[in-house]
Amino acid sequence: MADVCVVGVDLGGTKLLAGSLDGELNVRNRAHRWVSQLSASELLDAIVDCVEEVRGSLGRPVDAVGFGIPCLIDRSRRVAAVSNHLPLVDVPFADVMAERLGVPVFVDNDGNAAVLAEARSGSAQGARDVVMLTIGTGIGGGLFLNGGVYRGSVGCAADLGHIVIEMDGPPCLGSCRGRGCLEVYVSGPALAKEGERMASLSPQSGLAGAIADGHKLTGAIVTELAHDGDLAAIEAVTTVGQRLGIGLVSIINLLNPEVVVIGGGVIGAGELLLAPAREMVAARALALARDVVRIVPAGFGAEAGLVGAGIMAIERAGSIAAGGAG
Amino acid sequence: MADVCVVGVDLGGTKLLAGSLDGELNVRNRAHRWVSQLSASELLDAIVDCVEEVRGSLGRPVDAVGFGIPCLIDRSRRVAAVSNHLPLVDVPFADVMAERLGVPVFVDNDGNAAVLAEARSGSAQGARDVVMLTIGTGIGGGLFLNGGVYRGSVGCAADLGHIVIEMDGPPCLGSCRGRGCLEVYVSGPALAKEGERMASLSPQSGLAGAIADGHKLTGAIVTELAHDGDLAAIEAVTTVGQRLGIGLVSIINLLNPEVVVIGGGVIGAGELLLAPAREMVAARALALARDVVRIVPAGFGAEAGLVGAGIMAIERAGSIAAGGAG
Repeated sequence: MADVCVVGVDLGGTKLLAGSLDGELNVRNRAHRWVSQLSASELLDAIVDCVEEVRGSLGRPVDAVGFGIPCLIDRSRRVAAVSNHLPLVDVPFADVMAERLGVPVFVDNDGNAAVLAEARSGSAQGARDVVMLTIGTGIGGGLFLNGGVYRGSVGCAADLGHIVIEMDGPPCLGSCRGRGCLEVYVSGPALAKEGERMASLSPQSGLAGAIADGHKLTGAIVTELAHDGDLAAIEAVTTVGQRLGIGLVSIINLLNPEVVVIGGGVIGAGELLLAPAREMVAARALALARDVVRIVPAGFGAEAGLVGAGIMAIERAGSIAAGGAG
Repeated sequence: MADVCVVGVDLGGTKLLAGSLDGELNVRNRAHRWVSQLSASELLDAIVDCVEEVRGSLGRPVDAVGFGIPCLIDRSRRVAAVSNHLPLVDVPFADVMAERLGVPVFVDNDGNAAVLAEARSGSAQGARDVVMLTIGTGIGGGLFLNGGVYRGSVGCAADLGHIVIEMDGPPCLGSCRGRGCLEVYVSGPALAKEGERMASLSPQSGLAGAIADGHKLTGAIVTELAHDGDLAAIEAVTTVGQRLGIGLVSIINLLNPEVVVIGGGVIGAGELLLAPAREMVAARALALARDVVRIVPAGFGAEAGLVGAGIMAIERAGSIAAGGAG
């Protein structure tokens, strides 16, 4: 695999990132495109154009292209089945890209790509059983079990934001018809909401001051104030961290992972978020499982999806070259 | 494998069941022992004695013995690490039994044995991704993922009773220090408690009559009255079924199983329990995952553990014979 060369692509709801990876997982020849509000055909054109830009910068042919896309993938039908942000539903994405790019193409959910990156060369390197939660506007993530990405019976496993932590809790968001899902309590918007609640309880706080100055609170603002030492903001991050910990109790009791990796924008709060989550796990999870698990921030930042998509392409192209099932 | 012959043993908290299995999974030469309140050495003697009784009834040598035991097994140390009911903690069970029985011995958690039985030849036959919940005094169970039993990083995965469904719910039972665990709401004792609540609300009900007649309500009594058509008892079973459904929403969103198998004493309520659980999943789980999953009663009753332990012995003895890792 030493002289392999692939392109990894992370397709987000607003931005597309691409880059080349070699066998040592060095990322080079980065390129990006903005993709919000494109039609399906404009989006596919933009993706091809961006991958061609990366290829054009390389002095050699590409062995394969890997994509992480923000969609549930129906593996039985080989199409994107659910996508909250992009016009890809029912598009046979892998087949279209393979035809237009003329090389083997491998597609997976972006959360699966991210957990693969963390398990192979990030914060969970070497672990066989890894759970990753990517906490931003909502919660994404992936499961890496028994040494490989676990996708479930039709490819829609790892919807980690939709673990129920409060059976009669508030209705969930978007297309989910559940109640009390983890995502309702743990996300950037949830942190902003908790910040608003704390601001109303603490009119002298930095949070209340920010609102008085005309700011609309966001998760990023609450996080920044918490890092600055504002007690109300720290309390808001702590509450969200504790609720994250409740979700982790279920995950840890159920899956006994070696590592739980937390990524996404909300991990900007760092230990202010992770310490209360770890305390909740220590207080409430079952003995053996809580004793072995490490709960750590992601090793890759914004490039986790790109790197994971590239690793997937390297591994699967290699397995095809070696006569494997691909 | 046609002429293989193994002994499968299901070690419960009160009773030990053993029997021989052939390659067609026929169970013969059954034997049992009562095991409550034995010391560790008395218990080990009783197990050996029971297995020898089965062997004595066979006209041929035994290839291996498989055990399902009600313990979390620390696979790194090869000992039973946690056992609520039997004096087996820190006993190197597999090594002791192999020495005393003189044949290859394979040991797994009883929930893992049960899900293996259901996935190989029970209600989930042929499925690659199966979750089993065994609901009795508490909740046991197992995970069968990607075509094999999933045990987690140190062997304590599948603690399905300790998924949190209510973050500030009542304290959990036994050695669990959690709150609002599924087991608090869904079990034989939880059904009895819900029956008592319904009896107090419905003084004309069969449930209230049973209490007036001096009965202490149990899950079995509530189930029997529900089957007899007592509306208060049906309501109690429905409530427990709905709460089971909440737990299943988390499991289904997280693992996207093809089949969820429900076993244990509480499944005596049959569709009275399963229908409200399925309705909750249909109402609240995510689209693709809820559409594909089948939620079914266990195919094996009291012999699931025995059959699963036997299947494990057949499969692993076969893999050793074939030069596998065992």
